[in-house]
Amino acid sequence: MLQLSLPFLVSPQAKRPVIRSDFIHEKRPLNLHCLQLPPSLFISNSQQHPYPTLPFPSPATQSVAAIVFGDGSESRLYPLTKRRSEGAIPIAANYRLIDAVVSNCINSNINRIYALTQFNSTCLNSHLSRAYSGIEGLGHEAYVQVIAAYQGGDDKGWFQGNADAVRRCLWLLEEYPVSEFLVLPGNHLYRMDYQKLINAHRKSKADITIAVSSASRNHDPGFGFLQVNSKNQVLEFRLRLEEKPIDFVSVKSSTNFSDIAPNGFPSMGIYLINRQTIKGLLEEHFPTANDFRSEVIPGAISKGMKVQAYVFGGYWEDMKSIEAFYQANMQSTKNANLGYNFHNIESPLYTLPRRLPPTLITDAVITDSVIGGGCIINRCKIKGAVIGMGAKIGEGVIIEDSVIIGSDVYIRGDFQRSGMDIPVGIGKETQIRNAIIDKNARIGKSVMIINKDHVQEGDREADGYVIRGGIVVVTRDAVIPDGSVL
Amino acid sequence: MLQLSLPFLVSPQAKRPVIRSDFIHEKRPLNLHCLQLPPSLFISNSQQHPYPTLPFPSPATQSVAAIVFGDGSESRLYPLTKRRSEGAIPIAANYRLIDAVVSNCINSNINRIYALTQFNSTCLNSHLSRAYSGIEGLGHEAYVQVIAAYQGGDDKGWFQGNADAVRRCLWLLEEYPVSEFLVLPGNHLYRMDYQKLINAHRKSKADITIAVSSASRNHDPGFGFLQVNSKNQVLEFRLRLEEKPIDFVSVKSSTNFSDIAPNGFPSMGIYLINRQTIKGLLEEHFPTANDFRSEVIPGAISKGMKVQAYVFGGYWEDMKSIEAFYQANMQSTKNANLGYNFHNIESPLYTLPRRLPPTLITDAVITDSVIGGGCIINRCKIKGAVIGMGAKIGEGVIIEDSVIIGSDVYIRGDFQRSGMDIPVGIGKETQIRNAIIDKNARIGKSVMIINKDHVQEGDREADGYVIRGGIVVVTRDAVIPDGSVL
Amino acid sequence: MLQLSLPFLVSPQAKRPVIRSDFIHEKRPLNLHCLQLPPSLFISNSQQHPYPTLPFPSPATQSVAAIVFGDGSESRLYPLTKRRSEGAIPIAANYRLIDAVVSNCINSNINRIYALTQFNSTCLNSHLSRAYSGIEGLGHEAYVQVIAAYQGGDDKGWFQGNADAVRRCLWLLEEYPVSEFLVLPGNHLYRMDYQKLINAHRKSKADITIAVSSASRNHDPGFGFLQVNSKNQVLEFRLRLEEKPIDFVSVKSSTNFSDIAPNGFPSMGIYLINRQTIKGLLEEHFPTANDFRSEVIPGAISKGMKVQAYVFGGYWEDMKSIEAFYQANMQSTKNANLGYNFHNIESPLYTLPRRLPPTLITDAVITDSVIGGGCIINRCKIKGAVIGMGAKIGEGVIIEDSVIIGSDVYIRGDFQRSGMDIPVGIGKETQIRNAIIDKNARIGKSVMIINKDHVQEGDREADGYVIRGGIVVVTRDAVIPDGSVL
Amino acid sequence: MLQLSLPFLVSPQAKRPVIRSDFIHEKRPLNLHCLQLPPSLFISNSQQHPYPTLPFPSPATQSVAAIVFGDGSESRLYPLTKRRSEGAIPIAANYRLIDAVVSNCINSNINRIYALTQFNSTCLNSHLSRAYSGIEGLGHEAYVQVIAAYQGGDDKGWFQGNADAVRRCLWLLEEYPVSEFLVLPGNHLYRMDYQKLINAHRKSKADITIAVSSASRNHDPGFGFLQVNSKNQVLEFRLRLEEKPIDFVSVKSSTNFSDIAPNGFPSMGIYLINRQTIKGLLEEHFPTANDFRSEVIPGAISKGMKVQAYVFGGYWEDMKSIEAFYQANMQSTKNANLGYNFHNIESPLYTLPRRLPPTLITDAVITDSVIGGGCIINRCKIKGAVIGMGAKIGEGVIIEDSVIIGSDVYIRGDFQRSGMDIPVGIGKETQIRNAIIDKNARIGKSVMIINKDHVQEGDREADGYVIRGGIVVVTRDAVIPDGSVL
Repeated sequence: MLQLSLPFLVSPQAKRPVIRSDFIHEKRPLNLHCLQLPPSLFISNSQQHPYPTLPFPSPATQSVAAIVFGDGSESRLYPLTKRRSEGAIPIAANYRLIDAVVSNCINSNINRIYALTQFNSTCLNSHLSRAYSGIEGLGHEAYVQVIAAYQGGDDKGWFQGNADAVRRCLWLLEEYPVSEFLVLPGNHLYRMDYQKLINAHRKSKADITIAVSSASRNHDPGFGFLQVNSKNQVLEFRLRLEEKPIDFVSVKSSTNFSDIAPNGFPSMGIYLINRQTIKGLLEEHFPTANDFRSEVIPGAISKGMKVQAYVFGGYWEDMKSIEAFYQANMQSTKNANLGYNFHNIESPLYTLPRRLPPTLITDAVITDSVIGGGCIINRCKIKGAVIGMGAKIGEGVIIEDSVIIGSDVYIRGDFQRSGMDIPVGIGKETQIRNAIIDKNARIGKSVMIINKDHVQEGDREADGYVIRGGIVVVTRDAVIPDGSVL
Repeated sequence: MLQLSLPFLVSPQAKRPVIRSDFIHEKRPLNLHCLQLPPSLFISNSQQHPYPTLPFPSPATQSVAAIVFGDGSESRLYPLTKRRSEGAIPIAANYRLIDAVVSNCINSNINRIYALTQFNSTCLNSHLSRAYSGIEGLGHEAYVQVIAAYQGGDDKGWFQGNADAVRRCLWLLEEYPVSEFLVLPGNHLYRMDYQKLINAHRKSKADITIAVSSASRNHDPGFGFLQVNSKNQVLEFRLRLEEKPIDFVSVKSSTNFSDIAPNGFPSMGIYLINRQTIKGLLEEHFPTANDFRSEVIPGAISKGMKVQAYVFGGYWEDMKSIEAFYQANMQSTKNANLGYNFHNIESPLYTLPRRLPPTLITDAVITDSVIGGGCIINRCKIKGAVIGMGAKIGEGVIIEDSVIIGSDVYIRGDFQRSGMDIPVGIGKETQIRNAIIDKNARIGKSVMIINKDHVQEGDREADGYVIRGGIVVVTRDAVIPDGSVL
Repeated sequence: MLQLSLPFLVSPQAKRPVIRSDFIHEKRPLNLHCLQLPPSLFISNSQQHPYPTLPFPSPATQSVAAIVFGDGSESRLYPLTKRRSEGAIPIAANYRLIDAVVSNCINSNINRIYALTQFNSTCLNSHLSRAYSGIEGLGHEAYVQVIAAYQGGDDKGWFQGNADAVRRCLWLLEEYPVSEFLVLPGNHLYRMDYQKLINAHRKSKADITIAVSSASRNHDPGFGFLQVNSKNQVLEFRLRLEEKPIDFVSVKSSTNFSDIAPNGFPSMGIYLINRQTIKGLLEEHFPTANDFRSEVIPGAISKGMKVQAYVFGGYWEDMKSIEAFYQANMQSTKNANLGYNFHNIESPLYTLPRRLPPTLITDAVITDSVIGGGCIINRCKIKGAVIGMGAKIGEGVIIEDSVIIGSDVYIRGDFQRSGMDIPVGIGKETQIRNAIIDKNARIGKSVMIINKDHVQEGDREADGYVIRGGIVVVTRDAVIPDGSVL
Repeated sequence: MLQLSLPFLVSPQAKRPVIRSDFIHEKRPLNLHCLQLPPSLFISNSQQHPYPTLPFPSPATQSVAAIVFGDGSESRLYPLTKRRSEGAIPIAANYRLIDAVVSNCINSNINRIYALTQFNSTCLNSHLSRAYSGIEGLGHEAYVQVIAAYQGGDDKGWFQGNADAVRRCLWLLEEYPVSEFLVLPGNHLYRMDYQKLINAHRKSKADITIAVSSASRNHDPGFGFLQVNSKNQVLEFRLRLEEKPIDFVSVKSSTNFSDIAPNGFPSMGIYLINRQTIKGLLEEHFPTANDFRSEVIPGAISKGMKVQAYVFGGYWEDMKSIEAFYQANMQSTKNANLGYNFHNIESPLYTLPRRLPPTLITDAVITDSVIGGGCIINRCKIKGAVIGMGAKIGEGVIIEDSVIIGSDVYIRGDFQRSGMDIPVGIGKETQIRNAIIDKNARIGKSVMIINKDHVQEGDREADGYVIRGGIVVVTRDAVIPDGSVL
C-alpha cells in the first residue's frame, strides 16, 4: 500500500498569544492527507467557519501574561522619584529602569504585559506607551498595556498594595485566556529567561513558583526567605531572617539542607501563579489581602497549595536605595562588568528608540565611563561616570564616579524660564564627584559638587540637592549658581 | 548700490512647537547676503552653535497646548461607563467619543494634547496611547500624552475637579513654552476649527476666551450662560438660566442685545486661557478652586480679567445622557445628516487604525444604517442602526433604531468562559428595537429586546441590562439567554 | 541528598520568536536545580562579555527567511496590472493579494521576509513598506524588506527570472545567518502553516522541499508535476503533464503509486531550500539559470540532491487570469465559503491598518456580498458583489456578481482634474453585472455595464474598459459617461 | 541699481496636506460672530455633505511635493557605493547622507516627498521606508514614498536621467493636487528652508526657480552657471564656466552686474517647477529630454519661460568625491564648525530612530571627534575621527583623522562566516590615519592603515581597500589580517 505521510506534527511555536489551530487538527481524522482518501476529501476547509466559538482554550492561548509593578516606593529613591516613579528613573545613560523587566519579558516571548502604576506615574506611563505600545506586533494589541490606578464603580480608593491592584484589575487581566500570570516588580535590574521559570513551574505542576536568588543569600532583599526541599518545593517561609518560620508550613523533607543554605533563599518577589489560583486567592481565600509577599503567598502555603522555588543565580539588584541605584550605574561603566550587561546582543535591552545626533567630544580623557547620545563634551576629564543623553559638559570640567542623567534639550529645547540664566548642563571648570545630577539641571561655572563636609544624609532640596548615603543628588531642573560648593 | 535683502522676518514655518530661529536672525546684520559683502561672509553659520540658550520664547513656541478631560461623569452614561470613561465609549461604529475632540485638535494644528483621566480610565488611556501616541510626528514627542491621576509628593488624593487636575499637573504642562492652554471637555461631539477661536482670542487680546453655542440657546448644557456686548466681551455670567447674573460683572455695553439672546449664550465649557493667566488663577488667586465652570471662570471675571466669548454655530452635542448618546448615534445613520458628519474628508475624524476584514452580508435589507468593519451579517433586516465593528448578526434578526456596539473577537477571539455557551453576537430570530447592545454581549436566539413594558427607567443589571429614557441598554459582556423578552 | 544545580549553560534565549528553548532543556541534566554545586558557581555571568563573536551559528539564527516574488506577470491580469504588480491588486475589499502570502509567513513565525519586485512595483513597494516595515517587531529590523530591482556593479540589467533575482541579491540575503530560504510566489491565495513544511523538510533532511497541491491534481498550475515515493521523495519531475518525465531522475521506488496519482502532484512553485544548497545551485552548478521551475529545480534533481514533496490539501488559487481573480473575489462573498476564509481569527490576514469611517447605507438590499470600510451606499441592490473601501454607490444602482474596487477619496479627496465632472463612484440608476470596476473609476448615471454583446475578449482601453473572459474590466481612473452601455 | 530681492514674506503653510477650511470662511458673512445676525444663520453646516467633489483646489492643497533623487552616480564615491547608493552612505556617525535633504523638507513643512531610486537602491529604500514611511503623520499617507525604478507598460528600460525618471512617474506624482514640484538631489549636505525659496518663486510668479549658491562661486559644482538681473531673473545659462552662454537666452537687462558676479552664480541643481510647467516641458516640449540640467532647464529658458534664481548663502556641499565626503565628516567633528551643524535643535536632522546601548569607554583620550551609539572603546587615542554606531575599538588603538563607519552587530550579531576569525571592529594596537573604514570591516591586530607609500589613487579591492585622493578606504565587510600595513 502506498502512503504519503504528512509530518507527524510539530508544535509551530506560535509567537502570537492568540489561538492555536491545533485543536481543530485533533478533530480531523488523523490520516486526513493519506492518499487512499477520495480526492474530494482533500478540499478540506475545516478552519473556514467565521470565527468559531472555541470549545476550550487551545495550547497557544495557555500562555503567560506579565503583571509589572512600575512604581516601587516613593521614598526609597527620593528625590529621583519626586516627579517620576522608580521604574521611570533613567539608568545607564540610555534606559529607564523598567526597561530591564520589560525586555526580559520580550526576550522570553511574553508579549502580553500589563504595567500597573500609581505613584508619580505620568513619566512612566508615557515612556511605556511610546516605547512599547506603539510598536505593536502584528498579532497582538500591544507589548505593554499601562493600567494606571483609577476610580471606578465601588472602588473609589487608590491601589492598596500589589495584591489589591491585581484584584481590582482582574476583570481586565482575564480578558485574554492566559494560563498563568507572572507578577514582577518593575524596579529590579537583572536578566532572566522567564521561559525557564515557566517550564520549571509547569513541569512541577505547581500552583505558584517563586524565583529566589542564590547570589543574594547573605543579605535580605525584603521579599522573605524560603526553605526548600530537594525538589525545590517550598517548606518554610519567613518574612525576615530573624523571624521564626511561618508555622503553617507542614511539608517536611527528610533531607537536611541547612548546611548549604541555612537561612533559605531570599525571594525575589517574582511569582508565577496559575490563573485559577490567583483568582481563587484574591477573590475567595483572601479577599482583603493587599500584599502578595506578606499576605497572599504565605496564605497560599498555609492552604497547602503547591509552591515551588526557582533558583536564579545571575546578577540581581533591587534598587532599594540611592546607593544601590548609584552602584548599579557604576557597574555599567566597567567593561568586564560583573553586573548587568547593557551591551548584550543576544538578549538585548529595549527602550524608546531615539533620533539623537552623535556625541561630540572636543578634548577629553575618558576612563571607565558610558556616554549616551547627543552629548557635547568639551575639554574635560571624565572617570567612572555615566553621562546621559543630551548632556553638555563645559571646558575644564572634572567628573568622577558620578551619574549625569543628561537633558532633553533635543526634545524641548533649552528655553529660558524666568530668572534662569544658567544653561542646562555642566558649566566651565566645575568639578563633580560621587554625585548624581538629575535631568535638565543647570550647573553653573566653577561649581564644586564634592560633598566637602562629608555629610551622609542631608536635605537641601530648596537649594537644589539632597545627600543620601554620602552621595550628592542634584534634583531635576535644579539651578546651582556659579561658584557654589556643595 | 547693490542690495540683496533678506526677509526681515522669517516665516513661522516651523511645524515643531520648539524653538524658532528668529532671534538668531535678528542678531545677524540685516544685509547679510548683500552682494557687496566679501565672499567669505557668505559662509555664514550663525545658527551653528550647539543648542544655544534662547533668551526669550520665540514666536513658534508661543503655540497652544490642549488639555482634554477624558472622563466626564461616571453616572450620566452608566452602564456604558461601567468599565470605561465617557471619552472611551464607542460611537458611530468605528470611533471612540474622544476621537472627535482629539481630531479637532489635530485638524486645527494643535499637536500638543494632554489628556487628563481618572475614572475607569484604562480603556481610554489604552485607546489614546495606541491611536495617537504611537503615531509620533517627527517634530514632537507625541500627539497625545495621557496624564492619569496619580499620587505624588503632597498630593495623595484624586483630582478634585478639572481646575484641581490642571493645577496639580502644571509642572508638567509648563515644560513646553506654549502661550495659551485650550481646556476641552473630551466627551462632546462637534467639529470646530480651534484656530479661529485662537485667532479671535489673540485679536481681542483677551485673558480668557470661552466658546459659546449659538445653536443650543434654548436648553441648558450645564456650563453656564454668558451675556456679551457687541464686541463679544462677556458682561454677565450665570451658572443657570434662572439664576441672577453673578454680581461681580460690572462691564456694561450700550448695546441692547437682549432682544436677540435674552438669556445669553450657553457656554460650551471650552476655555482658551493665557499661560500666565491660568497659572495666576490656579496658584495665586484661587488656589483651592476645584472647578473651572463654577469657580475659576467666575473668579476671573470678578477679578476684572478680559473674558471674551467666541460664538460657535455648528452642531454640538454634550453626551449628557444615554438618550443624547443614542440620538447622536442615530444622527450618524442619516445620509443628509444635520448632526456630526463622520464622513468628512476635509476635516477627518481620526481613530485607532485597524486591520479588519470586510463586512460579509449574506442577505440583508439595510436602511439608514452605518456598518463597521469585520461584521458578519446573515439574512436579516436592519433599519436605523449603528452596527459596530465585529458584530455578528444571526439569521432572521430584526434590528431597528438601535446601536450594536460590536465585539473585539478579531483581537481576542471568542473564547469560552465558564458556562457561556452563547457566542458573542446576536442570535437567530432575535428582534432588537430602541436599544443599545454594548460590546461583546452574547444575545441568544429568539430574544426580544423591545422594552415590551414601556419602562422608562429600569435597573436589571444582574440580568444584563438597564433601561434609561426608555432605551434598553444591554451591558458589556452580558449574556441574554435564548428566548428572553426584555 | 539535597541538590540544587544551576543551568550549566545559559541559554542565549534569543528574542527572535523562532527558537524554542525546549531542546536546550533536553540536554540539561534533569536535576537542574539541585543544590550540590558549590556556591561560587551560582554567580554565573557567562553572557556578560560585550558582544562576543559567536563561535557557531546559534540556534536562534538557524531560522528561515522567506523570499517573496511580488510581481508575477504583467499580462495575465492586465489591465489590473497596468499601474500595479499582481501582488498589489486589491482583493476582497480590504486587502492586497500579497497580504495572503505575507500573512502566512507572519502566522508561521517567519519574520524575515524579502520581497523582490520589478514590474510596476511602486504601488506594491509602498503597500509593503507601510503595512509591514513600519510595524517593526522589537527583535528584528522589519517584517518585510522590499528589494526593488536595481542597477549595481556589473549587473546593469533587470532581474531575468526568479533564480536570477535571488542570485543577484544573495549578498544581501546572506547577511543574516538563516538556515533555509523559503521561495514563495506572491500572487497566490491560500493559507498554509509553513512551520509544518519546514518541520517535514528538516525531519527528512532534504536539500529542497517542494510544496505540492493535492487539491489541484486535475489541472496544470504551471509549476510542473512531481512523482513521489512513499517517503515523499521526489522521483520524477515533468514541466507539463504531457511531457515525458525529465530523464535525469534516477531514484526509483518499488512502490507502484501510479494508481493513486497517475500524473503526480502539481508543484505549487513553493520551494524550501537549504542555505548552502541555494548558494551552490545558483553560483556554482547553474550560474546562468534564470528560473527555479524550469532550470534550478530540475537541475538539483539531476544532481542527485534530496528533493522532497510536501503535500498541501487546502484551498489554493494562483491568480493566473482575470477570471481566476474574479472567482476568488466571488468566493469571498459566500458565508459558507469553500475558498479562502478572509474572516479567520486564528490565522488572520494582515494588511495596512486604516482609519476609515463606517459604511453608510441609506436603503439597500444586499445579498452575498462583502463591503469594505468608508462606503456610502444609497438606495440600491447589491448581490454577489465585493464593494471595496471608499466606494460610493448612487441611487437606484444595481450591482450583481461584480467587484467594485473602491476609491481612495479618504486619502486624496476627490479633486477635479480637468474636464472630469463625473465624481468618483457609481452614478445613479447605473447597472453593473459580471464586471470589475477598478479603483477611482468615475461611472456616470444610467450606465449599463452588462457586456450586452456577450463579448468574450475585447479591448476598448481608450474608452476605459476591456473585456476578459466575458468579464468587463473598467480601468483605474476611467471615466464612463452618463448613459453609456458597455 | 541692481537688486536681488528675496521674498517679502510668507504663508504659514499648513502642515497637513488636506483642505483648509479658509475658503469656507470667505463664503460666510464677515461679521459672523456678531450678535445682530438672525439666529438661523448660526446653524451652519456647510461641511456636512459626505465627501463633496471639491469645486476647486483649496489653498492647502496648492502645496509642494518634493522629488528627491537618492542615487547620484555610482562611481564618484566608489567603493562606498558598491552596495549602496550615494544617499545611503553613513555620515557623521548616526546619519545617512539623504537624511539632510529629507530633513530639510520636513523642517520646511513639505511632507509629500517622492524618492526616486535606481542604483544599488536596496539599502536606501530600506532606510527611507523605515525612517520616514512608518512614521506617518495623521493627515497624509507618509513622509517619503520610495519610487524604485520599475518596468511597466511600454517602459521597459531603466530611468535614463532625472528628467526621464520624473516623466515616467508623472502619473503617480500627479495623484495629489500639488501646485509645484521641488526637484532635489539627494546627496547634498546643506540646511535650507525651502519655504523661502517657494515664497520667492510664488511672489515672482516664476515658472521655474533655481537655487544658486553664493558661497560656491569660485568652483564649478557641475550644475551650470546662471547670470541674473536685478530681479533675480535668469538671463544666461552656461553648462560650464568656460562655455559661451547658451544662445537661446534672449532676456537682457540694462544693468551691468558682471563686476559683482562675473561668472554668474552656480546652480545647486535644485529646481522648483510649477505643476503645469513640468508637465508641459517633459511631455510636450521636450518629450525625449533625459536630464534637467543640460536639456530641460536650458530648454525652458529658450522657450521664454520665466526662470528665477534664488540665492542661498549657507554651507552647501555636493558629495562629489571621496575627499569631499571625507572632509564633510571631518567638519562634523569640530565644535565651532563652519560646516553642517549636526546638533542643530531648531532645524533638526532626522534619521532612523534606534535603540542602542550607550557607548562604553574604558580609557581613551578623545579629541575633536564624534561618537555614535553602542560603541565599545577600549584604551586608545582618537583624534579628529568619526566613530560610527556599534564600532568596537581595541586596546592600544590610535585613530586619527579618520571615519570609522561602525557596524550593525546590534542588529545582526557578529556571526562567523566561513574562515572569518577576525571579529568585526578594530583590533588591538592597530593604527589608522586618514582613512575611511566602511561598515562591518574586520581589522585585525597591529594593523597599520596609514597609506605608508603615500599613494594617491590605488585599487586593492581584492585585498579589502582602495585609495582615493590619498585616503585609504577599507571596504564594507573587508577582512584585514593581523599585522597588515596598508
